[in-house]
Amino acid sequence: MAAANGPSPGRLASVYSEVQTSRLHHALRLPSVLCSQFSLVDGLPSSATGNPDEIAKLFPNLFGQPSATLVLPKEAVEGKALKVGVVLSGGQAPGGHNVICGIFDVLQEHAKGSTMYGFKGGRAGVMKCKYVELNTDFVYPYRNQGGFDMICSGRDKIETVHQSSIFQLWLKYCPCGVIQFKQAEDTTNELELDGLVVIGGDDSNTNACLIAEYFRGKNLKTRVIGCPKTIDGDLKCHEVPTSFGFDTTCKIYSEMIGNVMTDARSSGKYYHFCALQTHPNIVLIGEEVAAKKQTLKNVTDYITDIVCKRAELGYNYGVILIPEGLIDFIPEVQKLIAELNEILAHDIVDKAGVWKNKLEQESKKLFEFLPPSIQEQLLLERDPHGNVQVAKIETEKMLTAMVETELERRKAEGKYKGGFIGQSHFFGLWCWGSSLVWEDGVGNLAAPVSEWTAGGTALTSLMDVERRHGKFKPVIKKAMVELEGAPFKKFASLRDEWAINNRYISPGPIQFIGSGADAVTHTLLLELGVQA
Amino acid sequence: MAAANGPSPGRLASVYSEVQTSRLHHALRLPSVLCSQFSLVDGLPSSATGNPDEIAKLFPNLFGQPSATLVLPKEAVEGKALKVGVVLSGGQAPGGHNVICGIFDVLQEHAKGSTMYGFKGGRAGVMKCKYVELNTDFVYPYRNQGGFDMICSGRDKIETVHQSSIFQLWLKYCPCGVIQFKQAEDTTNELELDGLVVIGGDDSNTNACLIAEYFRGKNLKTRVIGCPKTIDGDLKCHEVPTSFGFDTTCKIYSEMIGNVMTDARSSGKYYHFCALQTHPNIVLIGEEVAAKKQTLKNVTDYITDIVCKRAELGYNYGVILIPEGLIDFIPEVQKLIAELNEILAHDIVDKAGVWKNKLEQESKKLFEFLPPSIQEQLLLERDPHGNVQVAKIETEKMLTAMVETELERRKAEGKYKGGFIGQSHFFGLWCWGSSLVWEDGVGNLAAPVSEWTAGGTALTSLMDVERRHGKFKPVIKKAMVELEGAPFKKFASLRDEWAINNRYISPGPIQFIGSGADAVTHTLLLELGVQA
Repeated sequence: MAAANGPSPGRLASVYSEVQTSRLHHALRLPSVLCSQFSLVDGLPSSATGNPDEIAKLFPNLFGQPSATLVLPKEAVEGKALKVGVVLSGGQAPGGHNVICGIFDVLQEHAKGSTMYGFKGGRAGVMKCKYVELNTDFVYPYRNQGGFDMICSGRDKIETVHQSSIFQLWLKYCPCGVIQFKQAEDTTNELELDGLVVIGGDDSNTNACLIAEYFRGKNLKTRVIGCPKTIDGDLKCHEVPTSFGFDTTCKIYSEMIGNVMTDARSSGKYYHFCALQTHPNIVLIGEEVAAKKQTLKNVTDYITDIVCKRAELGYNYGVILIPEGLIDFIPEVQKLIAELNEILAHDIVDKAGVWKNKLEQESKKLFEFLPPSIQEQLLLERDPHGNVQVAKIETEKMLTAMVETELERRKAEGKYKGGFIGQSHFFGLWCWGSSLVWEDGVGNLAAPVSEWTAGGTALTSLMDVERRHGKFKPVIKKAMVELEGAPFKKFASLRDEWAINNRYISPGPIQFIGSGADAVTHTLLLELGVQA
Repeated sequence: MAAANGPSPGRLASVYSEVQTSRLHHALRLPSVLCSQFSLVDGLPSSATGNPDEIAKLFPNLFGQPSATLVLPKEAVEGKALKVGVVLSGGQAPGGHNVICGIFDVLQEHAKGSTMYGFKGGRAGVMKCKYVELNTDFVYPYRNQGGFDMICSGRDKIETVHQSSIFQLWLKYCPCGVIQFKQAEDTTNELELDGLVVIGGDDSNTNACLIAEYFRGKNLKTRVIGCPKTIDGDLKCHEVPTSFGFDTTCKIYSEMIGNVMTDARSSGKYYHFCALQTHPNIVLIGEEVAAKKQTLKNVTDYITDIVCKRAELGYNYGVILIPEGLIDFIPEVQKLIAELNEILAHDIVDKAGVWKNKLEQESKKLFEFLPPSIQEQLLLERDPHGNVQVAKIETEKMLTAMVETELERRKAEGKYKGGFIGQSHFFGLWCWGSSLVWEDGVGNLAAPVSEWTAGGTALTSLMDVERRHGKFKPVIKKAMVELEGAPFKKFASLRDEWAINNRYISPGPIQFIGSGADAVTHTLLLELGVQA
């Protein structure tokens, strides 16, 4: 049934399932250009996502570097032996293990004699020079396996003081005050690193860019490479059409929602309110709610109207998808929260509710429109600074209660005759330990794998600045749902049809072999312009 | 990407995913005996699960019927054309559609000219003679697809008055008072049914047995067949080693828990308390807690001890599985609930807590041992009869809070130095719309599919009686975890090892092709004695 595999200390105690074992021995297909020696061809000089002048000032050594594409060289050349360190940074994402295995394989095959180090426990491992030398035996049990535990991850940042004005400036916006660029320098010197690969999200890549600038400024030989990782889909640009991790997220959410839809249709009497801990591109889109300045009442009415129309067709069931932070996008809610924070900081909340008179008219009305359980949550759950914790509000439960109330009102008026039973679900981040789909930094993703392109771009090209405490801070901007993008437009053109009819589609569990195993997500196909 | 399929009205509006489409065209492997004509061979006369004398009295026409096995006949015989009705009864389970398709195929191939009716909306369809004639086109889009919506299900019972004392007796224990056996008789007469197949759980099969007795008593030609369905695993006997639906449940829970384990190992800092809406055979077993008369404090200490031991090894994370109804199995909790119901019915719950003095000493201590949120839930959430709703208590959250409190106590005493962050999950029943694994009523399940046996047994052989209101009521007893069974014993021999070390195994998503696609659950292999 199950076989013990591999001699890795980390996974030594594990017994693998059949699927895990079969994945372990699965030979991944690679883009042709990665199957043999390759050389680099420079593209045009890069700029920045926004405020290029500020970025140029902040990154004088890095700014303007060209993007690069991997190509097959005219004649075979053996790469020289390299010393490369790799670090897993930030939250886990399926695919992290294969990024490490991929670098390992390329070094083994095309740069013989190379050495690879895995820094342990995230960026702290770089600072403290805690590492493990990666070899065939160590890497083996993690091939094509989910998780993020081969060398463990961590959330510490590498940030430091430097005598230059730029580093002084950076220090000012680093509230953590950790002074450790020097430690990273010591580590790369000690190990004589040719390269340091930081596998992480927007924050980690911003940090990688700072280290790269620091290293370049000190003329160190260590090149810093950021490998984009996200399960939220918020890290992308022309060269990075999607990040590893996000594809799996989409597929697993789709499976779960497909199952909920099948359930809804089979039982025929429940409305499922599903909150997703990501930014789904479906049904309620926070970015759209914000752009249209919708109120909570607008959102409630939108749902209630659909429930009523469906009831007339005899459908007293449905599935409603809600992004986790939806209410953050509603301007009137933001205003209420700000007023509540002010009041709660200075006044006593009396049982009789006199305190409510301190709210502005509009906010008071909104507060009273909220279900009692949400009112209570707003008043009771506070962060250490005494602020209301919007993130703790269970949006799906709140909307269920609000739609229920609105339906009761309409029922009393004789405008609605259906039955409504709300079921709320929260699809959290615990759900994708297991799978791995593809490598990253690649393009032409709609084509067969062999034709995928590979390359990279300057980290500074992803950068913009944010103004904080009166200074510019360099950041990689999170990608949001683009209301002008093809996926949203496609969705907007179909949603009325989906709302009323039951156009349910169930992707089923992720398949590793056979039909569906190579499925590219619809959103990506739409973004790439391959599907209309 | 996706193709529209099939002309079924029910699924006409659906677009199928690649996996759904590929399943649609997948030819299921069948036991050899089902691939051609078969005949029936009778076994020994059957008895009952318990109280055979009472069952014999309650089912004078059915009791003692032999079990039957399908065999290949010496010479090919064409079956005569039949009229068969089928009904989906009770909660949905993946596999229901294929049971209908399987019956359809057998009739098409081996009883040419047969007619098949699907009663709509569960047993109500039988009573009201609401049906659809099933044909190739209608059935086609549901092949190998999850859901329970082809002819819809329902939870109405067919129960009726009859002049005989037995039926008078039955009526007394049927609180719903629905008087509809006669309607079912009218329907089967109108359609001239040779057979009525009830696809359902323990309750539906009990009901099928009552109908069968009634039909036999009236000398109707309609044979009643119960097809066992359950996602809880609580319907089994020698002839029914497992029911369809349960296999998928096990596999999907296993996938989810495998993912949580991968998550736990990768982040290294969370304890996941997962409540399962089924009876898992792992970690906390309600039946064992009941058999050992454990207290809530015992259960809390058991978990806390393991958390402490793991902390000493440097593991501040873990995964703890809890059956949904765990606290129902704890005798002291049952006592507290009974006392609370009594007090809440007659007294006022004063804020100062004077009411608590009405609790017996032991119950008062237990109540005060509970986290405040659970105390509140016990007092506030009541059913329409004013009773405390134990089912609404979130066991996983309660245990998280209790373990947290106990750890704080030990920390204060210097006996525990680790870190503990509890994460609670609830794995509900919404999660398995999508998949279908195998047919039922079959045996020899550990062998290749072609060697599976097929057959059936008398419904009365699954029966026992329960005493209600001083009378015997026939019931199919729910199967519980057997503390003397091979699966529990295996688990008990391994759990200390699992508690301390990280023997995580991740089954991954259900695969339809390749390695793992034909996996038989370990529990079933242990039950069948095939695996030690």
